[in-house]
Amino acid sequence: MQPITLRPIGVIHTRYTSFDEVPVQAALNGGEEGVIDLDSRYAEGLDGLADFSHAWLLTWLGPTDGTAPAEAPLRQVPFLLARTQQHVGIFAMRGPRRPNAIGLSLVRVVEVEASRVRFAGVDVVDGTPLLDLKPYFQDADVPAGEVRCGWYETVDLGGPITPRDLGASP
Amino acid sequence: MQPITLRPIGVIHTRYTSFDEVPVQAALNGGEEGVIDLDSRYAEGLDGLADFSHAWLLTWLGPTDGTAPAEAPLRQVPFLLARTQQHVGIFAMRGPRRPNAIGLSLVRVVEVEASRVRFAGVDVVDGTPLLDLKPYFQDADVPAGEVRCGWYETVDLGGPITPRDLGASP
Repeated sequence: MQPITLRPIGVIHTRYTSFDEVPVQAALNGGEEGVIDLDSRYAEGLDGLADFSHAWLLTWLGPTDGTAPAEAPLRQVPFLLARTQQHVGIFAMRGPRRPNAIGLSLVRVVEVEASRVRFAGVDVVDGTPLLDLKPYFQDADVPAGEVRCGWYETVDLGGPITPRDLGASP
Repeated sequence: MQPITLRPIGVIHTRYTSFDEVPVQAALNGGEEGVIDLDSRYAEGLDGLADFSHAWLLTWLGPTDGTAPAEAPLRQVPFLLARTQQHVGIFAMRGPRRPNAIGLSLVRVVEVEASRVRFAGVDVVDGTPLLDLKPYFQDADVPAGEVRCGWYETVDLGGPITPRDLGASP
């Protein structure tokens, strides 16, 4: 299959500069705000976003200097399982070291102004490239039927957690 | 910002060959099954996925022949608003013609076997490249607080809908 080339549409600003202090999962860190600086030529594309309470950020979690990402092991110990050292397939976890290092973060839309979006729910470092921004839409994003969340159900999640808290190396 | 190069991890097989007959949003077409043919070298990465009821498919909705996608208008009429012809910013809708044409589909995991995943919830054409596969995880994917879904709240969604049903051109 042909490789695919993407161009970031903007950059995300947060207070984090190192990966091991960034909370795991945006939704578990809903009290903290970040800012999207969208490339100004895309500003018009934000029309209507302020009517949505939540949005998905699709982010690039790989190197930003044009170098190829390191090959991601296919089975890894998720940050949240650092204590037990259980390995899980990369497609059964949400960690950043993936064959295509795309992150998916659910955030709350706080304010949309020109090409800037203020949001709540931070799980990325400062300078993370944004690939796409999509509105959260219940009919598309709520699963139907019974929901089982695999190994996540064995983990107690009370709020913001960082890899450093867990003694994990990101 | 540097361009980013991705390589598809597999391909999705469905019964649809043309864009205008594909249902809008996987979650609205939960009764229909498709198959992911993961590149066999990634099979090990599926370990543990069968313990999850649902997963996110990150798909590539642009051209698959290596050509650059056509420039996406920043304001478009969503398929679901074809009747009223209301324009919406591309980052306030889920349509496929986006600056980076990445699709996000919530599907139900039916069966995982070697490098094949059978799933329910089809909203892509046959041959769609898969960029990433992530488990659905309630603590990360359920919004906290009040949820507002903008213009989607003005649309009545009862089940599978295609662009053709709506008289829209995809």
